[in-house]
Amino acid sequence: MKYNEEDLINGVNSGNRVSLSRTISLIESDKSAIFRIINSLNKRSQSSYVVGITGPPGAGKSTLTNRLIQNFRSKKLTVAVLAVDPSSPFTGGAVLGDRIRMQEHALDDGVFIRSIGSRGDLGGLSSATSGIIKLFDAFGIDIIIIETVGVGQTELDIIKISDCVLVTLVPEAGDGVQAMKAGLMEIGDVFVVNKADRGGAEKLAREIDYMISLKHKEVKWSTKVILAEAENNIGTDDIVAEIESFRKFETDNNILIEKRAKRKLSEIETLLFQRMKYELENLKQDKEVKKIMSLVAKSDIEPEEAVNMIIKLFKNNF
Amino acid sequence: MKYNEEDLINGVNSGNRVSLSRTISLIESDKSAIFRIINSLNKRSQSSYVVGITGPPGAGKSTLTNRLIQNFRSKKLTVAVLAVDPSSPFTGGAVLGDRIRMQEHALDDGVFIRSIGSRGDLGGLSSATSGIIKLFDAFGIDIIIIETVGVGQTELDIIKISDCVLVTLVPEAGDGVQAMKAGLMEIGDVFVVNKADRGGAEKLAREIDYMISLKHKEVKWSTKVILAEAENNIGTDDIVAEIESFRKFETDNNILIEKRAKRKLSEIETLLFQRMKYELENLKQDKEVKKIMSLVAKSDIEPEEAVNMIIKLFKNNF
Repeated sequence: MKYNEEDLINGVNSGNRVSLSRTISLIESDKSAIFRIINSLNKRSQSSYVVGITGPPGAGKSTLTNRLIQNFRSKKLTVAVLAVDPSSPFTGGAVLGDRIRMQEHALDDGVFIRSIGSRGDLGGLSSATSGIIKLFDAFGIDIIIIETVGVGQTELDIIKISDCVLVTLVPEAGDGVQAMKAGLMEIGDVFVVNKADRGGAEKLAREIDYMISLKHKEVKWSTKVILAEAENNIGTDDIVAEIESFRKFETDNNILIEKRAKRKLSEIETLLFQRMKYELENLKQDKEVKKIMSLVAKSDIEPEEAVNMIIKLFKNNF
Repeated sequence: MKYNEEDLINGVNSGNRVSLSRTISLIESDKSAIFRIINSLNKRSQSSYVVGITGPPGAGKSTLTNRLIQNFRSKKLTVAVLAVDPSSPFTGGAVLGDRIRMQEHALDDGVFIRSIGSRGDLGGLSSATSGIIKLFDAFGIDIIIIETVGVGQTELDIIKISDCVLVTLVPEAGDGVQAMKAGLMEIGDVFVVNKADRGGAEKLAREIDYMISLKHKEVKWSTKVILAEAENNIGTDDIVAEIESFRKFETDNNILIEKRAKRKLSEIETLLFQRMKYELENLKQDKEVKKIMSLVAKSDIEPEEAVNMIIKLFKNNF
């Protein structure tokens, strides 16, 4: 079913959950939609705060997210969660099971939870992610949590869209070293050792502490590693306090504003590239372009000449 | 030093070696050049024949190429060799040493040898390769040999630009299996077991024979595996005969024409993408675009809006 885009956006701007949900689906399925609707979205980019949560599979990210939702809600903050699963176009299997635990928030109008896949996108994070963040922002969400399910590039890409990156690890042999190898130490603002009741938690925390101390930063943010047991709601208050303290640090030192400006500039490049790819796909369906292609197939013209002609069409038909 | 493009092309079309060399450099350094000069190039696309030579490092590809040059020259055919080294922007080290062996042809006007790097290009083969092939063609070269030095994707990409793919292997433990894994069995039209004086050559030839027999083709080209010792000029005649026989097979069955048409169509896509990337880079230097970028940095407009504005500029300024 097709919805009127204007109606959807009005719905998002006025806080209609169904409109929000449908607009996310629209952006997911039609990468060009965000270009049409961006000017009609509420602009409140200073009000929402994006927390990216990353870490290896099994680190308890979903349970932790659930605890964070509860905590932020107790402070009357509205929360949106976007779970990005690069391995699947759907969120399935174990991941789905984790997600079910969040269903306790299903009747809470102050919480909005959504999973998206990113298969087929270049890089780890779905290209729709930043558009969806803008929708949450326009909707009036206070805290936007982006949770990555996958491994590899997605974990690192989260820094491109987050105001604060929370890295969670569990005490397991070599987890600290693995995290360093994966580049997680570089991108984390807040570090959590989850499942801290297991042996080796303090050793891991010390390892992380040491590795953080090796990082050189112009403006010093001194992270402390937080021991937590998300399952038993231990450490959640400390984590939220650390996130809030990082937010204050970023704001007081003008880092947040600079970070967002930089992020938007790099977003332009990604979007331009995407947009061109999209226009290219459209062009291939064009009747005139098909005519040009058949000339090439018959060797009447060379591919380079065809490209010149197609670019001209592209220019005229935009 | 800048040369007049028109002069260069006239030089290429009239067989001036210096012009050919300079035009190759031009295409290598400025990816947009081929779009400007394509219409001024001689069109003789039915006359030159592109032989791609691939195989693992150490298979003696350069020595083999050298023998093929000698053989084709003895038949009064003109030969151009393009060595593509994806690992380096220059051709260095062992590769350079190999190349030196070809220097015996340095004074022969019927032979043209050139190395190019492909570092920084998407995919294995340099994006300049197909443009250079067109230059050789316009120059009046009869046989164009493309030799890949690298491993991986380049080896497989060679099928995209070659009329005939020659795969060369050497008798070493597991070489046949490795070749199959690497996808070489799929793309080869002619197979050579080089350094056939080593033990295991016939066993490898039988292995290849068996693997080829598993390939199903609509029109059957029955390859025979050729045992050779390029170093001692053994087997060269057989290889050239096999290449010529494959060319006849392709021509008689209209396969060559179809293959080239198909290749040109896929070339359009690659070139369009390249062209857009190039235009994008140019755009970023534009004064108006820089103005738009600064609006984004100040959060006056969103990146999506900026992309809409940049695309409009792109349209108007082409």
